[in-house]
Amino acid sequence: MPDHQEPNARGLFGGVFARGGVEADDTAWLQAMLDTEAALARALERAGLAPAGSGEAVTATARADNFEPNELGELAALTGNPVPGLARALARRVPQTAVSAVHRGATSQDILDTAAMLLAKRAIEVMRADLAQAAETTAGLAEAHRASIMIGRTLLQQAVPVTFGLIAAGWLTSVDEAREGLTAVRSRRLAVQFGGAAGTLASLGEAGPRVAALLAGELGLALPVLPWHTDRLRIVDLGAALARVAAALGKIARDVTLLAQSEIGEVSEGAGTPGARPADQRPADQRPADQRPADQRGADPQAPAASPRRGGSSAMPHKHNPVASIAILGCTKQVPGLLATLTMATEQELQRAAGAWHAEWEPLTALLRLIGSASSWSVELLSGLVVDTSRMAANLNATKGLPLAEHVASLLAGVLGPAQAHDLVAEAGARAVSAGLPLQDVLLAVPRLEERLSAAGVTAEQIESALEPSGYLGSADAFITAALEAHQLLEAAEAKEAGHG
Amino acid sequence: MPDHQEPNARGLFGGVFARGGVEADDTAWLQAMLDTEAALARALERAGLAPAGSGEAVTATARADNFEPNELGELAALTGNPVPGLARALARRVPQTAVSAVHRGATSQDILDTAAMLLAKRAIEVMRADLAQAAETTAGLAEAHRASIMIGRTLLQQAVPVTFGLIAAGWLTSVDEAREGLTAVRSRRLAVQFGGAAGTLASLGEAGPRVAALLAGELGLALPVLPWHTDRLRIVDLGAALARVAAALGKIARDVTLLAQSEIGEVSEGAGTPGARPADQRPADQRPADQRPADQRGADPQAPAASPRRGGSSAMPHKHNPVASIAILGCTKQVPGLLATLTMATEQELQRAAGAWHAEWEPLTALLRLIGSASSWSVELLSGLVVDTSRMAANLNATKGLPLAEHVASLLAGVLGPAQAHDLVAEAGARAVSAGLPLQDVLLAVPRLEERLSAAGVTAEQIESALEPSGYLGSADAFITAALEAHQLLEAAEAKEAGHG
Amino acid sequence: MPDHQEPNARGLFGGVFARGGVEADDTAWLQAMLDTEAALARALERAGLAPAGSGEAVTATARADNFEPNELGELAALTGNPVPGLARALARRVPQTAVSAVHRGATSQDILDTAAMLLAKRAIEVMRADLAQAAETTAGLAEAHRASIMIGRTLLQQAVPVTFGLIAAGWLTSVDEAREGLTAVRSRRLAVQFGGAAGTLASLGEAGPRVAALLAGELGLALPVLPWHTDRLRIVDLGAALARVAAALGKIARDVTLLAQSEIGEVSEGAGTPGARPADQRPADQRPADQRPADQRGADPQAPAASPRRGGSSAMPHKHNPVASIAILGCTKQVPGLLATLTMATEQELQRAAGAWHAEWEPLTALLRLIGSASSWSVELLSGLVVDTSRMAANLNATKGLPLAEHVASLLAGVLGPAQAHDLVAEAGARAVSAGLPLQDVLLAVPRLEERLSAAGVTAEQIESALEPSGYLGSADAFITAALEAHQLLEAAEAKEAGHG
Amino acid sequence: MPDHQEPNARGLFGGVFARGGVEADDTAWLQAMLDTEAALARALERAGLAPAGSGEAVTATARADNFEPNELGELAALTGNPVPGLARALARRVPQTAVSAVHRGATSQDILDTAAMLLAKRAIEVMRADLAQAAETTAGLAEAHRASIMIGRTLLQQAVPVTFGLIAAGWLTSVDEAREGLTAVRSRRLAVQFGGAAGTLASLGEAGPRVAALLAGELGLALPVLPWHTDRLRIVDLGAALARVAAALGKIARDVTLLAQSEIGEVSEGAGTPGARPADQRPADQRPADQRPADQRGADPQAPAASPRRGGSSAMPHKHNPVASIAILGCTKQVPGLLATLTMATEQELQRAAGAWHAEWEPLTALLRLIGSASSWSVELLSGLVVDTSRMAANLNATKGLPLAEHVASLLAGVLGPAQAHDLVAEAGARAVSAGLPLQDVLLAVPRLEERLSAAGVTAEQIESALEPSGYLGSADAFITAALEAHQLLEAAEAKEAGHG
Repeated sequence: MPDHQEPNARGLFGGVFARGGVEADDTAWLQAMLDTEAALARALERAGLAPAGSGEAVTATARADNFEPNELGELAALTGNPVPGLARALARRVPQTAVSAVHRGATSQDILDTAAMLLAKRAIEVMRADLAQAAETTAGLAEAHRASIMIGRTLLQQAVPVTFGLIAAGWLTSVDEAREGLTAVRSRRLAVQFGGAAGTLASLGEAGPRVAALLAGELGLALPVLPWHTDRLRIVDLGAALARVAAALGKIARDVTLLAQSEIGEVSEGAGTPGARPADQRPADQRPADQRPADQRGADPQAPAASPRRGGSSAMPHKHNPVASIAILGCTKQVPGLLATLTMATEQELQRAAGAWHAEWEPLTALLRLIGSASSWSVELLSGLVVDTSRMAANLNATKGLPLAEHVASLLAGVLGPAQAHDLVAEAGARAVSAGLPLQDVLLAVPRLEERLSAAGVTAEQIESALEPSGYLGSADAFITAALEAHQLLEAAEAKEAGHG
Repeated sequence: MPDHQEPNARGLFGGVFARGGVEADDTAWLQAMLDTEAALARALERAGLAPAGSGEAVTATARADNFEPNELGELAALTGNPVPGLARALARRVPQTAVSAVHRGATSQDILDTAAMLLAKRAIEVMRADLAQAAETTAGLAEAHRASIMIGRTLLQQAVPVTFGLIAAGWLTSVDEAREGLTAVRSRRLAVQFGGAAGTLASLGEAGPRVAALLAGELGLALPVLPWHTDRLRIVDLGAALARVAAALGKIARDVTLLAQSEIGEVSEGAGTPGARPADQRPADQRPADQRPADQRGADPQAPAASPRRGGSSAMPHKHNPVASIAILGCTKQVPGLLATLTMATEQELQRAAGAWHAEWEPLTALLRLIGSASSWSVELLSGLVVDTSRMAANLNATKGLPLAEHVASLLAGVLGPAQAHDLVAEAGARAVSAGLPLQDVLLAVPRLEERLSAAGVTAEQIESALEPSGYLGSADAFITAALEAHQLLEAAEAKEAGHG
Repeated sequence: MPDHQEPNARGLFGGVFARGGVEADDTAWLQAMLDTEAALARALERAGLAPAGSGEAVTATARADNFEPNELGELAALTGNPVPGLARALARRVPQTAVSAVHRGATSQDILDTAAMLLAKRAIEVMRADLAQAAETTAGLAEAHRASIMIGRTLLQQAVPVTFGLIAAGWLTSVDEAREGLTAVRSRRLAVQFGGAAGTLASLGEAGPRVAALLAGELGLALPVLPWHTDRLRIVDLGAALARVAAALGKIARDVTLLAQSEIGEVSEGAGTPGARPADQRPADQRPADQRPADQRGADPQAPAASPRRGGSSAMPHKHNPVASIAILGCTKQVPGLLATLTMATEQELQRAAGAWHAEWEPLTALLRLIGSASSWSVELLSGLVVDTSRMAANLNATKGLPLAEHVASLLAGVLGPAQAHDLVAEAGARAVSAGLPLQDVLLAVPRLEERLSAAGVTAEQIESALEPSGYLGSADAFITAALEAHQLLEAAEAKEAGHG
Repeated sequence: MPDHQEPNARGLFGGVFARGGVEADDTAWLQAMLDTEAALARALERAGLAPAGSGEAVTATARADNFEPNELGELAALTGNPVPGLARALARRVPQTAVSAVHRGATSQDILDTAAMLLAKRAIEVMRADLAQAAETTAGLAEAHRASIMIGRTLLQQAVPVTFGLIAAGWLTSVDEAREGLTAVRSRRLAVQFGGAAGTLASLGEAGPRVAALLAGELGLALPVLPWHTDRLRIVDLGAALARVAAALGKIARDVTLLAQSEIGEVSEGAGTPGARPADQRPADQRPADQRPADQRGADPQAPAASPRRGGSSAMPHKHNPVASIAILGCTKQVPGLLATLTMATEQELQRAAGAWHAEWEPLTALLRLIGSASSWSVELLSGLVVDTSRMAANLNATKGLPLAEHVASLLAGVLGPAQAHDLVAEAGARAVSAGLPLQDVLLAVPRLEERLSAAGVTAEQIESALEPSGYLGSADAFITAALEAHQLLEAAEAKEAGHG
């Protein structure tokens, strides 16, 4: 990890959009270009195309703080990219004997594309670590909340019961799928670019492929079948892998903002104090009193006020903005447009493109930074998530049995036939809604139903039992188990990959 | 308006994505192309470049049902667009004397672009009518709910009080802004395209501009300064005007889905019976009992079950899906990507483009259809919207005064100074939250506060009054008035425009 | 493959945007939904949850021509999607004994999502076949044109020599990468959706996972870890795989339009007669005279005129529009925006989404249709491509040696040192440009150069030889070989996959 | 204009993507936020809501160099945006008496949105100046090249003749349309945001609208009807106006890259030396010899080598990369994706949004920067454009009369009837192509044609004359005149606007 910048020199909006360990600023770009030039010098030397010692000499010089980004940026206006200026500046700085090892055989795009791959590789390593932690925490939530029953919501309306564990299992699965994609792209699709002016490596004679292979080895990048100057599928693959992370995290963040609404209050973001231990994942009512959500603690108006909270507003003390979720959404909502730009830029002309290639650099940089930031935020969001099972229970009970109507209907179908059972429950449901009464009360008040039911051996207790949410969770638990098993498999695969990486 | 299709032959997803009066299918396209060819024949005749009677003869033949879209579509594969096949088919069908008036001077793009403008013009007229109705209904909501106090929500958290009238005034303003944009694009930016093979109208000699002007007149489209074969700003303008409608309606639909959540329930979508009178806009508790939201009607489990409801689910009787809002969002969420395609397609080569032009047709058609559908849905959504002021009151009271903390602090600031007042209220607020007590109770329990307040002449009644939401609405009413006045101005402008149109 | 529609009932623009074997219209959607319902009935029966024979009964009824899309589309307005109407219509049509097997356990999204996966699976099979053929043809071009030297062009300027074989090898590699992605998505990411109202399959009790597995087996789709109602990474994966095809084909089409420019003329699109044999891939001058490009045939003004050509214009006989390339670009340029919509729509709320899910259907359908069309066009484009090696040679020679300046400089570097060699050649090059003379002539006219060169043993013949383009192709041939080997490996893998598929 | 940064501290890619006078970096943002806070303090003072002198005191402190962006960026992580930290830091720095004038009544979004409008206003002023210059230069090209005949190209194939003046007139029209849009957005749509926590300005009591109006006056921004916290049509309008500039400039840049291709060579980019006079716009062959394109100067291999050229490559002396065009395309190709993000972000929840608002900041900043850069590049591109009329003539003649086939056919139609005339010319054209002969020669060799023509009084001279390109330009000149007149009208309107601005 380069130590070239203060960890927090991320600018005015960096706290939101450039959080965490991913480096994708000018310095990181510059260093990646220099690393590429240095690796090329070493590769040339190993191929016998540059003097002994030149690889080391170039490597020693190729440090970002030896160069001035603004100056290179100005020179970039002469050629349309910063590499020619950089290569010349590098050649001026290395010992005379190493000059011939600088940039030999390469075109600007070789250096810039390979640097982009390096930048991506480094960023992905950071994301993978963050997302592994986020996944682990989410797996913990899924396990801890297997029995935390809550109402499922579809189209933003209360539907039928689920468990919070099942929701967490869904989050886990998508985060794991996103991680898998990052690993695959990193190992298979991040490749060196090395083709020279028009993709023939003509100036290296026959030695081209050998130098390319050595370069790939030096940088830990894949070796492509042939130069990919205007075959940009790798860029699409990288963009898509990052967009998948955004898809997974944006969904989680959206769920948290919804479940954290004042009127729902089933989860909330923790205080987010740096260095805090991961939140206790036990259901709220099984935790020590001081870690319980406020409304479970009992009233004590004399208790000391909480220290300033993240997401809080002293003027609006009831407010608890889900800042991590909002920051994630602020990042992920920018992704579709950026991915569209990368996809559009694949239409590149002939041997090297006039404009479409240039249009890739900024969206790619932004994607790495934004997904890096969102990944970092996700660790904080998930490890600090406060789950309020008592609110879940309260919200579930608020509709007085109606979410179980379907279940009751299936019980009655055996007695009345499906059509009549359905109609009867539907009617009872409508009445319960309009009357504000529990479904059970309305059902048991239906004239002559009781006698037919008892004739058929269906008891009021059975109806009552059918109205019990915990009896209508279907495969929720099985699905949690499946998600956790898949997670274990992925962890094993990732560990193996790390061993090879 | 062509009567060439059954009003509901809109296909499997048409009920959602192709609702209302906008026609943007193959038949509408075909008719618009034929209308263009016919208008060109008339213009040529008027310019003395085609035999007398040829304009009428071509016009009589130029009816979509004389042609077969699938056949023309197959021929389109030979040239990349359907116009050459159509022009040839048209020429075969007109009387011999009129053949020379068919397609003379035109290139395929002239016909297709002008047809697109006609299609857009017709679609915009339908949208403008729908949106005028939606705006009028929304203005009615703003007026009727000036005093319907509810909690304002920021970042999906309860914040400070607003009125539902203010929310409606905000919706109104954006719908009116969107209407204004449609009108401007229709009158100023929808222009004929007429340039011939390379934009010189060479085959017409000197007569080009005259024929172009006559053509514009025939079709009621603007006359451009010069052909715009590869200057696609008009397409961007059209796309942006449609995207603005999506922006206005998508925001309203999002708000409705949120306010209609089971746990919030402040609005709901009406039954949406076709031909229904606009919903009664009085606050719910001032309406006749049978029009009140269910939970205000009193319990009557024997009341007849509602007839099948739109958005309902017989298996989940408590569910009331906001179908109109969801359909609108289903439409509007497709818009950014389609607008991106149109914007990307502006990079058109030289005299006529190889691919970018072709890439416009489908997204433009989709935008017209989707915004037409969303506009139609918005009429239903807004005229059927049920506003539940009692739920608004209940939700506002649920936080027991906390949204007014800011207001109390400003009252106390005169006594204690701003800093101390702020701290005191913030502390009281935090205690109120943790204790689940009304802010007022906590505040009045602060030791020694009372005596300082009474020393300063601040009474408990004043604090109580500062905690009254209706006293903390600031400029809400003034903003409603301003929005309604701006709406009246727009109505006057639109009426004037209609007089000219 | 359903035979429910005339092969060419693709509408007014279908010849361009809906070519080939992919079915993605309403009928295909309807059939896919019905296939899903039928498979569910069979799965339920196999799981013992539906009467014997009900699977077969439902399957027999579940044919698209038994249903009316427009009618279902109208009903879709009531619930926001066409499935409830379809399920009810299906239940009405099956024998009474099979009614309980219809739609049991499923929510609308289960049917619609699974149908989308089926549609995608069928479309991908068609694309894979088309792209396999396109790749094979391209491999042929790469092999045939190993020695067809032409000028490489970077930033749309002539640069250094390449071969057309290398260009074709680049195209091949990207098409093969795109094929690989389709295969991977089809086998790993196209999965059944089956979760019931909120993803618990509650109404099936414990049997949920078993029925899901049977359903997956019936349809040849993958079984997911858990329902993915609001985890849309699969949709992103599908969209990205299709966008990769667009990236590969759009790049090829762009290259062809550029190389086919009147002033370049190195390739042209063939006549594209249906059923034509793949074009002869030998270099133009090795083919029988009547298959050679016009300008190699010798003058015979009396020869019979060509029959009407695709892409031709009788009014502009010199024009030969590259219609297939343009059609491909017309398709591929729409892809980034559509992918953005799918990516944006991943932010789906809680258990099932309000709008974002609905916004997926149309862009997904459009992507399948457009990539299907582009794939079909690519077969025609590549198999009909006419390569004019004499124009390649002429264009290469037009710059009179300048593209080889770099090569000469490297020869001289041994004598003069790199810096001086570079300067000398650069100066000679500049003079050659301004004088319009061959580089060789200018170089040999440099005073005193000759004597220094002969002193160093460099002969004029060596300089001449360094100016020979065929000597400056570097690894072009090796890269072609590598691409062809990778292609063979892919073919083997695809064949194996087909064996399993 | 703030003088807070070195004119070239634009970073590693700034020479390409951040050229010219637009400031859109952190410092510019910070200053715009501070300018907003200062203007608010002055407005409050003028409204009698802040002590005398407080406006001036806050204004004096509100300078970007008093604050540290990185620090504020870190604090932004606590609340999701940098304003609370900034407001607190500002309050700490102003004299005690002015504290109450800091941020009063405002919510973070008020400050940030208004700052964005200020930033946009300042950026648009710079763009307008650049684009006015670009338009003026383009008008000069249109006038100077009224008679510079060249071949028009459609679908990248030679079609019929045009003039370069007509091409320039088309460019001019689109640039002028783009300028008009910027002016309209600046004056009508850039508005202050001032609504307080939930859009009611509650903490200001009745004074809200008055303070808002004063604030608008202080900043020279429009006053909206009501706060637009979640009505984002203004952002769409700004984005669309910027995208229109991209549409105009991207098209020009694409044309230049195509016309500058080695094989076409009709235009090239000038050397682009800073401070250079605008290029001589006379046709190349009317200029002094040393300003003519190389191939018109006569051979002089001994002439001094050109000094290092922008866009040049010393290794490939024949290359002259169109760097300005490429840079413009590198900017404009990023625009559709960014506009999509802004459009997507319009779906904002209730009173203030959770994520969608945040997602606007970066794309808006990028759009201002990129369009600023493209505008600056366009001045250089257009004022330095070298037009080579002799290459235009040569390329036009290369097809030996074929582009005039249509014209000849219309001449013969009077004699032979349109059908026969068309067939005869089409056949002759086909033969001319296959034989590589001039159309004229083939036509005159058609047996028995001559006698029929002379019988009808058509002479060989008339055919020859019909084959003269200058006789087949139709309305090209009239269109140039129209474009120049429209340009004059716009200049007058802009001048008037500037008077008011």
